[in-house]
Amino acid sequence: MNKNITPQTLQRLPLYLSYLKSLPKKGGSVYVSATAIAEALSLNDVQVRKDLASVSSKGRPKVGYVIVELIEDINRFLGFNSKKGVIIAGAGNIGRSLLSYEGFSDYGLEVIAGFDTNKELIGTRLGGKPVYPVEDMKAFCQREHITTGIITVPEDAAQEMCDIMVSAGITAVLNFAPVHLTAPEGVTVRNENIAIALAMLSKHSMKLPE
Amino acid sequence: MNKNITPQTLQRLPLYLSYLKSLPKKGGSVYVSATAIAEALSLNDVQVRKDLASVSSKGRPKVGYVIVELIEDINRFLGFNSKKGVIIAGAGNIGRSLLSYEGFSDYGLEVIAGFDTNKELIGTRLGGKPVYPVEDMKAFCQREHITTGIITVPEDAAQEMCDIMVSAGITAVLNFAPVHLTAPEGVTVRNENIAIALAMLSKHSMKLPE
Repeated sequence: MNKNITPQTLQRLPLYLSYLKSLPKKGGSVYVSATAIAEALSLNDVQVRKDLASVSSKGRPKVGYVIVELIEDINRFLGFNSKKGVIIAGAGNIGRSLLSYEGFSDYGLEVIAGFDTNKELIGTRLGGKPVYPVEDMKAFCQREHITTGIITVPEDAAQEMCDIMVSAGITAVLNFAPVHLTAPEGVTVRNENIAIALAMLSKHSMKLPE
Repeated sequence: MNKNITPQTLQRLPLYLSYLKSLPKKGGSVYVSATAIAEALSLNDVQVRKDLASVSSKGRPKVGYVIVELIEDINRFLGFNSKKGVIIAGAGNIGRSLLSYEGFSDYGLEVIAGFDTNKELIGTRLGGKPVYPVEDMKAFCQREHITTGIITVPEDAAQEMCDIMVSAGITAVLNFAPVHLTAPEGVTVRNENIAIALAMLSKHSMKLPE
């Protein structure tokens, strides 16, 4: 196993993971081959074979990989088996659904708190998670060593919220506000504009990269 | 103006649009130059100039484009100024926030109904939109000429829901269930796994293309 994989391989691993997890748990085969994965995902099978070999040494000639073992190896390689805390700024509709979303734990993420400016929400729990005032975000993130934040505030408050997160030590930001956010070097922002992604899909049959 | 633009240009146009919309509406300049856009988005300025020229003829030497006019021209080019109906399968947490999300209209999309199997939800309105039984989806889509659907059902029901949508004539599917969906040729599926995207961002500083 080799930790020095290319960004392209790193990018494909989650795709393999999604596919492997979508295979039937009962009734299907215990094994999966690189060729079968390549075919299902329309990828080159030499590439898939190489990618898998770089994260798991358990592949066997002819039969391939035991599905659950391969899932485990990819999870371990990607660090999805160790927990990392996440905070959410904005406890509106999208914020609430993410606060109560249980799918994060499969990928080693745990949403631990929400932050809002609305006095009626502060002090309550949403999706079982506490909602704190935005003023407390910086101290909270530093104390809990949080480096990942989600922004679901209205667009005119999003850049300011991003700046607060950066000052709190956050280095990975997932932004759902429909506005392009900027952050200093060393901070990665993914602008997740669902409406644009859907519009390009709907009107141009195009999958937008970001 | 030329409709035969490359997929790469088509892909960058929404990015320009997000950036232009993020500019201050009051107090800022009325004009924007290709160079300024290129700089803000870390793109090549010759490329940006060419992209903009292919969708708007209103650029002027030295001053550039009037921001609101350029937004209008990109919107028109992308078809974001004409309405298209969208349906949502699954009226759980994510489905509800999308049913009540108002940001779609900026991109020429209108969520017109939700579909669910839960008898307690059927017949109610969520976010002002009616919730119908899944059995009615096919007839509804054909009658209303719907070709765009969003899937927010649990993962074990997602592929079946996708198949129903395809049989109803839907050709663009945005899937929020954490499972890789497949569809026949001619149907574009975007698998939107927020948890994986966040995990790769958080643990590998990597922006995943899909």
